[in-house]
Amino acid sequence: MSHNTFGHLFRVTTFGESHGPAIGCVLDGCPPGIALTAAEIQTQLDRRRPGQSRFTTQRREPDEVRIVSGVMANGKGEDVTTGTPIGLMIDNVDQRSKDYSEIAAAYRPGHADYAYDAKYGIRDYRGGGRSSARETAMRVAAGAIARKIVPGLIVRGALVQMGPHAIDRAAWNWDEVDNNPFFCPDAGKAKFYEEYLDGVRKSGSSVGAVIEVVAEGVPPGLGAPIYAKLDADIASALMSINAVKGVEIGDGFGAAALTGEDNADEMRMGNDGKPLFLSNHAGGILGGISTGQTVIARFAVKPTSSILQPRRTVDRYGADTDIVTKGRHDPCVGIRAVPIGEAMLACVIADHYLRHRAQVGEPVSWPFTKE
Amino acid sequence: MSHNTFGHLFRVTTFGESHGPAIGCVLDGCPPGIALTAAEIQTQLDRRRPGQSRFTTQRREPDEVRIVSGVMANGKGEDVTTGTPIGLMIDNVDQRSKDYSEIAAAYRPGHADYAYDAKYGIRDYRGGGRSSARETAMRVAAGAIARKIVPGLIVRGALVQMGPHAIDRAAWNWDEVDNNPFFCPDAGKAKFYEEYLDGVRKSGSSVGAVIEVVAEGVPPGLGAPIYAKLDADIASALMSINAVKGVEIGDGFGAAALTGEDNADEMRMGNDGKPLFLSNHAGGILGGISTGQTVIARFAVKPTSSILQPRRTVDRYGADTDIVTKGRHDPCVGIRAVPIGEAMLACVIADHYLRHRAQVGEPVSWPFTKE
Amino acid sequence: MSHNTFGHLFRVTTFGESHGPAIGCVLDGCPPGIALTAAEIQTQLDRRRPGQSRFTTQRREPDEVRIVSGVMANGKGEDVTTGTPIGLMIDNVDQRSKDYSEIAAAYRPGHADYAYDAKYGIRDYRGGGRSSARETAMRVAAGAIARKIVPGLIVRGALVQMGPHAIDRAAWNWDEVDNNPFFCPDAGKAKFYEEYLDGVRKSGSSVGAVIEVVAEGVPPGLGAPIYAKLDADIASALMSINAVKGVEIGDGFGAAALTGEDNADEMRMGNDGKPLFLSNHAGGILGGISTGQTVIARFAVKPTSSILQPRRTVDRYGADTDIVTKGRHDPCVGIRAVPIGEAMLACVIADHYLRHRAQVGEPVSWPFTKE
Amino acid sequence: MSHNTFGHLFRVTTFGESHGPAIGCVLDGCPPGIALTAAEIQTQLDRRRPGQSRFTTQRREPDEVRIVSGVMANGKGEDVTTGTPIGLMIDNVDQRSKDYSEIAAAYRPGHADYAYDAKYGIRDYRGGGRSSARETAMRVAAGAIARKIVPGLIVRGALVQMGPHAIDRAAWNWDEVDNNPFFCPDAGKAKFYEEYLDGVRKSGSSVGAVIEVVAEGVPPGLGAPIYAKLDADIASALMSINAVKGVEIGDGFGAAALTGEDNADEMRMGNDGKPLFLSNHAGGILGGISTGQTVIARFAVKPTSSILQPRRTVDRYGADTDIVTKGRHDPCVGIRAVPIGEAMLACVIADHYLRHRAQVGEPVSWPFTKE
Repeated sequence: MSHNTFGHLFRVTTFGESHGPAIGCVLDGCPPGIALTAAEIQTQLDRRRPGQSRFTTQRREPDEVRIVSGVMANGKGEDVTTGTPIGLMIDNVDQRSKDYSEIAAAYRPGHADYAYDAKYGIRDYRGGGRSSARETAMRVAAGAIARKIVPGLIVRGALVQMGPHAIDRAAWNWDEVDNNPFFCPDAGKAKFYEEYLDGVRKSGSSVGAVIEVVAEGVPPGLGAPIYAKLDADIASALMSINAVKGVEIGDGFGAAALTGEDNADEMRMGNDGKPLFLSNHAGGILGGISTGQTVIARFAVKPTSSILQPRRTVDRYGADTDIVTKGRHDPCVGIRAVPIGEAMLACVIADHYLRHRAQVGEPVSWPFTKE
Repeated sequence: MSHNTFGHLFRVTTFGESHGPAIGCVLDGCPPGIALTAAEIQTQLDRRRPGQSRFTTQRREPDEVRIVSGVMANGKGEDVTTGTPIGLMIDNVDQRSKDYSEIAAAYRPGHADYAYDAKYGIRDYRGGGRSSARETAMRVAAGAIARKIVPGLIVRGALVQMGPHAIDRAAWNWDEVDNNPFFCPDAGKAKFYEEYLDGVRKSGSSVGAVIEVVAEGVPPGLGAPIYAKLDADIASALMSINAVKGVEIGDGFGAAALTGEDNADEMRMGNDGKPLFLSNHAGGILGGISTGQTVIARFAVKPTSSILQPRRTVDRYGADTDIVTKGRHDPCVGIRAVPIGEAMLACVIADHYLRHRAQVGEPVSWPFTKE
Repeated sequence: MSHNTFGHLFRVTTFGESHGPAIGCVLDGCPPGIALTAAEIQTQLDRRRPGQSRFTTQRREPDEVRIVSGVMANGKGEDVTTGTPIGLMIDNVDQRSKDYSEIAAAYRPGHADYAYDAKYGIRDYRGGGRSSARETAMRVAAGAIARKIVPGLIVRGALVQMGPHAIDRAAWNWDEVDNNPFFCPDAGKAKFYEEYLDGVRKSGSSVGAVIEVVAEGVPPGLGAPIYAKLDADIASALMSINAVKGVEIGDGFGAAALTGEDNADEMRMGNDGKPLFLSNHAGGILGGISTGQTVIARFAVKPTSSILQPRRTVDRYGADTDIVTKGRHDPCVGIRAVPIGEAMLACVIADHYLRHRAQVGEPVSWPFTKE
Repeated sequence: MSHNTFGHLFRVTTFGESHGPAIGCVLDGCPPGIALTAAEIQTQLDRRRPGQSRFTTQRREPDEVRIVSGVMANGKGEDVTTGTPIGLMIDNVDQRSKDYSEIAAAYRPGHADYAYDAKYGIRDYRGGGRSSARETAMRVAAGAIARKIVPGLIVRGALVQMGPHAIDRAAWNWDEVDNNPFFCPDAGKAKFYEEYLDGVRKSGSSVGAVIEVVAEGVPPGLGAPIYAKLDADIASALMSINAVKGVEIGDGFGAAALTGEDNADEMRMGNDGKPLFLSNHAGGILGGISTGQTVIARFAVKPTSSILQPRRTVDRYGADTDIVTKGRHDPCVGIRAVPIGEAMLACVIADHYLRHRAQVGEPVSWPFTKE
């Protein structure tokens, strides 16, 4: 319900604007006894941090996270969660509020400016205030903790399309993802993107992207029928990321074009005495519940709205005007959306892991009929 | 949080299995004083009801809804809501449980069977139990009430793709939607679908579809930044419908291929002294908040999993087997998903209307800066 | 949040008015695999049912409960919960709406009439509509299920004061509770109440009562610091029962008069190697978390507001008037509040049992420090 | 649901331990456009702050609050809320962790120590960690904002009993409350308390108290039937304050001893053409909904558990031991509970004000029947 809280049992509440003194996050519901250091969280934050290549905003935000509460030494040389709320804080340092003085009254097309004024009658125009992507740093921090809650869970992501240019899925290599500034698993396409995005950037334009995030090691049985479906929560989580306009699970929109025979993920008993799916059109989720297969989701990110090309707009006083959004912006916000998408997926799965434990207990393995 | 509740202030809780005595719904949070009759709800239910053409399941479910509570005569010849929970009930009548005896132990590919057993260790195999699309009748009923909450709101939907065959958007005519059994706004394509789907049905196969739902008259300001985004809730609502694998808002996945210039919905002051958007790539939502433009969403429905073609699978005892899903099934469940999608969109908007009213008051109109 | 839902993970949603066709309840979040029959629920309902002695209302409500969903045969001769929502229905049968015609416009002192009109501008005056104690039948039904969720849990209750007359706690005998129409554990006082309440009834008056409910077998560790305190939820649950004006835990208001030395529940290691509390001033809860001692709560019920003595009031049109509430009313509603209080306590504990399991896992036993 | 969040639409989430670097609070759902300064919040915090007389703990906590987000200058010389989450922080400064070294392993009677270990298997023994009353500073801060949300709302509180010594209600004078260190409205009794509490303090003992909080200017219609009752939420809010063991509304437990005639709050039309209650046994709430009368609640605070008198206990390793709780403690924690109780009452009323506005709109005034 809360406007700034995500999750039900693993609850993430964020606060702070990009141009206030700090942003923060309260993580409530984390189980006790989990080893946790600020350094671990920092590792994930650094993946999202701007200013790491010429393809992301040149703002310098060290994004140094502090753990304010909920963790203490356990007397055995480890810092562990205590089960009480984990408070996280990141100080804001590289703000240039004057960059925004021109757009205090004019509505930038594609931004939330107009909608905020329509809702609240007031908005923090400095850096977008609450609508700034800066808030997503806290999502990544929360995701770093979520990853530790489900035993054996591995969450990874990759950029699979930039502008109209999709990767070659046959060339997918997870190792490549960290070898280029695009989180791109296709080395050849990454090379192409470099030149392509340089052109976009120099022309003061921007492009969109599609990101794929996957979760391996998700135990079967997470999620629930009807309104607590695992995929419904993933859809909500990914759609809540800034600039996202579409979400799909498994074959997604492609499934609409398939026949029932082709779409069916058939099964056979495996050599290890466990059931085996022969394909994964479903993206690891059936009836809203995980099957134990890899969970696969994709989301579309629109092109950055802040561009140097002048656009027609109006101001809050009712005058026509043209606007150019200066400042330091990502030519493709989809790139930094990769670790954010991973974090959201990890948070949803951690939440459902706890929800499942509440109603049913620890996830079972095959055979399901225990007696 | 609740597994069977949807919405925060306009709350829909459903219960019942397809093969139990009845299905029901509790609608909590509805404002008092709204005129409401069972007949109005029935009108919407009849749009979803099976057995109306040879293209939907031949089960005969009259789906007669009764209002059990929350409505009373207001002494002026009208039945109105009282502000207390509205209980709705539909008796189940045309059940043939024996149709399902063969699949009590075997996992139907593409169904929730395997996932339910993995989660609960028990499942109601008769008609899919809780995973049956029958539950969606209650969504449609709730949506009929939701439509009455936001003054001036109009929610409509249409099937825009069946199998790989998309409609011609230039041929879109809302009046056509009720002239064919597919909710298709393109008369020519509707004719084509007739023959096409007959072939699919006769071969014992099935196909997927894409549905578009739109809401006109949504006041600006509904939704909220971060985790109560209007589009995040729409994504969750649509993804929670049976068989849905993808959701998009406005240009959706298409936005990824655009440049920032092309994607920007520019503005100018209109002749009526109000701001005017010159395009609607955003689908009526910016920063998670409605702008007053038409809200546009699409969702992909996978092909019906219940098909007459035999598929390979396993049973709950660990044996390989083949399965044919008899019974009476829709060759394209996407068709009946149209009124369901409309209902979910209406529920989300009604919910956000109440949420907005809580925090801010009644939605404002231009100019936003009141003093 | 929901106005008609109680609990977080064990969620009870009720609907229906006393003079509509039926009342109902949806129980969401119940674990799967729990044996459950309508007969078991009926046993609890019969304890609350009116018309069983001359000391309760003479309305005849058979209160026959039907299970509409969420339970099915498990193939081993048992009906068990499936993990999906349990729908319960009770038809209303002995309504005499005309008894209420006189009070359609006048506000009965002590009733919710005035407040309902102030809130909704409309109210169901027949039998109090939603404010009728009839709704509590559904609480008792839900409580019957809640009792089965926590292994070893025993919840009992007793009337410990009627009007100004408190029982003699030294005479407490649980076996007596079922031997008199007052749920009174003090046989001598029960005899006294008989004559006393006869006098109250014959004079057209009414009296209040104090009820004590206790839960044995509550594992240590349920509840949580700050806002999910076990005692805060018990307070809310009991205060939500019709006519309740006060709630206390353990020594309650008496604790205010104690010194720190006297109030401290000291500890010693017991002969069984487990810690032992030497007293229970705290009522089994410290810092909002159960200690493993018996949980003890008391609540005060005001006298029935429906009395035959005329009272001064006004009507909804602004005229002074006098009112006598005819109909068939309990001279002491506190009596039937005993099974209701038990049910609410059981629901809170079941809810916290599931919440604990979500965050921490199954409750531990001594020693707490596992390694 | 969340363990550390209070409220539904006006949501207060707190975090931080007494011996960590800081405590904080996120206030979500606050309406936009409300003038707010840190100084206003500080005024309320200073009323709760320790070390102001010899009757409260001698810890020196300046409790300086900072607003981290959610407030900005509105261009007219005022700082106002923006509708986004308000982050509040207070640094911890006067910690003496070594005071607690002795009790790291032993369970202090009356404290949450044992319960925390039973729940989490780990606890922050320094200053009680999360169970410390220090958390309540954030409640007072949130309450300072809540007070500004409902137009015309005045919330006040007073200590009405210390140990066994109740005030003389005939001597009640609100002006006296600020003239003594006890928030006592009876000047004579305040004088008596001074000597009395000195004796308690010097003997290393402690005593309990009863606090009364009242809210004037509550519009009729706040709250809702069944589980969103205004009094049920007040009960939960007050019971969630550290050391509280009982809560009552209006006549509370005293109502149990009344007859229906005596308890009825009769009505007559007033000279101003509005209905008038002739008494207020109900404490301003009927059927869970406010009537427009003053809302009255009382709560009982147990004696401080930290005392210098040795008590018998056990440690976490299973050994018997005796314990003396050194450190700097309040001889009567009930005193500082007065502003905390006020804050909680204000938060509940603000929350229900927003909830009412969501479902019904702005509260109405007489006559209720608008047409």
